[in-house]
Amino acid sequence: MVEAISNGWFSEIQNDLWPGQAFSLKIKQVVHEEKSKYQDIKVIETATFGTCLILDGIIQCTTRDEFSYQEMISFISLNSHPNPRKVLIVGGGDGGVAREVAKHPLVEEVHQVEIDERVVELSKKFLPNMATGFQNPKVKLTIGDGFAYMKKHVNEFDVIITDSSDPVGPAQTLFEESYYGLMKNALRPGGIVGSQGGSYWVDCDYLKKTMDGCRKHFPTVSYAHTNTPSYPCGHIGFVIGSLDKNKNFKTPLTNFSEAELNDMNLKYYSRDMHSAAFALPRWVEAKLSSNN
Amino acid sequence: MVEAISNGWFSEIQNDLWPGQAFSLKIKQVVHEEKSKYQDIKVIETATFGTCLILDGIIQCTTRDEFSYQEMISFISLNSHPNPRKVLIVGGGDGGVAREVAKHPLVEEVHQVEIDERVVELSKKFLPNMATGFQNPKVKLTIGDGFAYMKKHVNEFDVIITDSSDPVGPAQTLFEESYYGLMKNALRPGGIVGSQGGSYWVDCDYLKKTMDGCRKHFPTVSYAHTNTPSYPCGHIGFVIGSLDKNKNFKTPLTNFSEAELNDMNLKYYSRDMHSAAFALPRWVEAKLSSNN
Repeated sequence: MVEAISNGWFSEIQNDLWPGQAFSLKIKQVVHEEKSKYQDIKVIETATFGTCLILDGIIQCTTRDEFSYQEMISFISLNSHPNPRKVLIVGGGDGGVAREVAKHPLVEEVHQVEIDERVVELSKKFLPNMATGFQNPKVKLTIGDGFAYMKKHVNEFDVIITDSSDPVGPAQTLFEESYYGLMKNALRPGGIVGSQGGSYWVDCDYLKKTMDGCRKHFPTVSYAHTNTPSYPCGHIGFVIGSLDKNKNFKTPLTNFSEAELNDMNLKYYSRDMHSAAFALPRWVEAKLSSNN
Repeated sequence: MVEAISNGWFSEIQNDLWPGQAFSLKIKQVVHEEKSKYQDIKVIETATFGTCLILDGIIQCTTRDEFSYQEMISFISLNSHPNPRKVLIVGGGDGGVAREVAKHPLVEEVHQVEIDERVVELSKKFLPNMATGFQNPKVKLTIGDGFAYMKKHVNEFDVIITDSSDPVGPAQTLFEESYYGLMKNALRPGGIVGSQGGSYWVDCDYLKKTMDGCRKHFPTVSYAHTNTPSYPCGHIGFVIGSLDKNKNFKTPLTNFSEAELNDMNLKYYSRDMHSAAFALPRWVEAKLSSNN
């Protein structure tokens, strides 16, 4: 067994999700290590990627590149809805998605449910620039299971963003078809879901399975992607579904001016980036539209 | 010093171009190792990325993802020219770019100059699906220095594609301003250059320097990018310049039908991917357009 931490480097090497490849970061200092009720948590200070949160041996975010993920999952989902007033975030314990969603001028209420309280507490301590999301008065955090929470909420939200870890451990149910069914019930008419969907480079079969699950409950489904160096293959994407059967995700419904983008401190998202995120390589188009 | 090969893994760890981060591939077998006149060459059979060519400790290509780079550098450059009849490739010793360029129906002649004969010979042996480019009757290969070759060719080419390794070792001069001056002279009126330009995630300052060098000789300059998991940050791009001061790179001038794309066996490139490749994150737009 190759160790996750050795010779002053952390390597994302002990998992079966992306066999035969590993990304490593040089460590300045291991800041914190614990086993919470749900998962193994590490916080490391890296040499060149800032502070890094690791759950069960998998990098969740680094302060160098987190905005490329948080901004894109948030604004692509929100700007696909004409009036995203009430938003639910499932997962996202570091606070980064809450930080972005709360910036949106049309958003009035942000409800968030995260299963692991310790991730929130450690992010407040070690990732203050992300956990700042929890301080926004629009945001109301509940500690609990997203799957169970959803069962109790019907016809409530305009947009549901699922910012989960990968489909092993506590997040596994958030990729299942039945979860898409619950989200459909929790949405108001015309509602949108945007979920962390992994990378087609890592596992295109799994992505197709997730999208097929979404398609059973949502008439319009697509996939948008972004470049985040600290994720496997430097790449991650979002499965996005709409209850509107004529939805065109590629064209955002809210267009911010340059001044608004600056005021919101958006470093990655723009109208151009929104549209470009839906362009897929030919082999991926073929795979995702196939019947098997 | 952390070893490049250890515990059955190859790690791209011994270089100063992207400090503090490393990508690793599990090795099935080290197929070949030698020191050529110019560089250290390794060919490994990996567990999940196919065959991998490594020069001076840096991954050049893997058979799993090479098309995402070869197709994009080739077709973005070619389809930015209205009639790319005569093309020069500098570098590209594996043959992948020649394979793609020669597919283009408007291309009549492909001249290629590669400095290291051993890369060509080893690719013919171990990467036959890439080196197939050299068998196309349109392609004429010269072994020699691209910089020196360019000095002898004036007003000859429609498009020049520079498929170089990174700016250390034999490829360093191919990123310099003077090289862009030579390419300008080697082009016919309205000519296009497309050069491997690295990733903004890896070194945006260096990218800006390269683009500023290009701007001294070309009135229109842009940057397009693609996702290649085996490159650092999973990301790489191309500096593209045109002698036409009104050039709009985002809209390809040749549009292939689905049937043509299938016939050419294009797995990555399409009209949508061409346009999307020019969308840049806001922080990159700001950096590349700044005066310092």
